[in-house]
Amino acid sequence: MSEVLRRLDAVIAERLGHADPSASYVASLHHGGLDRILKKVAEESGETLIAAKNAAQHGERATLVHETADLWFHCMVMLAEFELSSADVIEELERRFDLSGLAEKATRGAPPDVD
Amino acid sequence: MSEVLRRLDAVIAERLGHADPSASYVASLHHGGLDRILKKVAEESGETLIAAKNAAQHGERATLVHETADLWFHCMVMLAEFELSSADVIEELERRFDLSGLAEKATRGAPPDVD
Amino acid sequence: MSEVLRRLDAVIAERLGHADPSASYVASLHHGGLDRILKKVAEESGETLIAAKNAAQHGERATLVHETADLWFHCMVMLAEFELSSADVIEELERRFDLSGLAEKATRGAPPDVD
Amino acid sequence: MSEVLRRLDAVIAERLGHADPSASYVASLHHGGLDRILKKVAEESGETLIAAKNAAQHGERATLVHETADLWFHCMVMLAEFELSSADVIEELERRFDLSGLAEKATRGAPPDVD
Repeated sequence: MSEVLRRLDAVIAERLGHADPSASYVASLHHGGLDRILKKVAEESGETLIAAKNAAQHGERATLVHETADLWFHCMVMLAEFELSSADVIEELERRFDLSGLAEKATRGAPPDVD
Repeated sequence: MSEVLRRLDAVIAERLGHADPSASYVASLHHGGLDRILKKVAEESGETLIAAKNAAQHGERATLVHETADLWFHCMVMLAEFELSSADVIEELERRFDLSGLAEKATRGAPPDVD
Repeated sequence: MSEVLRRLDAVIAERLGHADPSASYVASLHHGGLDRILKKVAEESGETLIAAKNAAQHGERATLVHETADLWFHCMVMLAEFELSSADVIEELERRFDLSGLAEKATRGAPPDVD
Repeated sequence: MSEVLRRLDAVIAERLGHADPSASYVASLHHGGLDRILKKVAEESGETLIAAKNAAQHGERATLVHETADLWFHCMVMLAEFELSSADVIEELERRFDLSGLAEKATRGAPPDVD
């Protein structure tokens, strides 16, 4: 498990508990409710797509890393609302990886039916 | 750095190099090009939102973990197209975390002007 | 009110009522449930973004029109699930337009707080 | 062709031409560039999904109409950047509708391979 992600999960969980929404960005997101957090996930997902297209055209890789970090961070805040964390996501990835889950995905999402 | 994510990055990077798109799901995504990968990121982002709303209504947390893992996995495939990886995203999160980046975000995205 | 959109709304509403999901694409979407329709909206939204970036880079305007049509069509199917239609959306746009809604938007979404 | 959409297309096209970004919301979007407009499309798409899930759970249909109108409006601003308009989208929908394009979609997106 990533030490950085684990520490960030802990920071998020701790800040979610604050009563004062102005105490931190995480507290303000939590105060805004799940829909507010999900809007940020949608927004950051769109910004990631745009950054990837710009990286392909102009080679601006730093923005792509920045936007993906924003997306993952807001996913972690979303997960924390359900008492879940990046550890659960990584465990799921590990389970698929070890149990040849990627091979199974290959069948499920084979080229002909994706567009 | 997460051992699981690091291994998954290595698997993705290795499979991206395969000439045969039918060899693996990653190879088929790579063969389809960046737009194909980005469509999957957009799709999985939408499925994550829907899963979060369902988790809030019916408590189905497993699907939310599953969809977030799908989203992060496809982000990692996207990053690999630019010779980037989850390590770069985690480094960015660590940098913000250590340099009080979250406090900076609190200012930038304060409640009144986000909706 | 657009004659084309009104006729398309009628076709969608009629097909939603079919018991057999293989009868039409709309019937199959309806049979799949709201989440299936919303996944298509998310997917088509992502494809619209990608098409817009490609149009800016290579001038492929036809794909952008195609993807936006896909997005609006799936929005209409989504609306039909709630016994709403494009007429309601157009009425809302008209209301804002006539009641200087765009001016109101200008205030609400002024540059400094949008990013 | 919808009279309302046609008038809105004209308003958008007129405002795009303004040099002063503070003159209107459309002018500020245009001044921000294509990426700024696409971020709004992504954001409104996410808000539409959330509104649809809320409508299904609590029956709040007005918000769904409002968010879909926001999504279509920002699509129209996006189209205007390419000297396209809602008329092109409606023409595309008419073409598919008349030429049994929906039947073709039924084959292309049949239930088994979509998830």
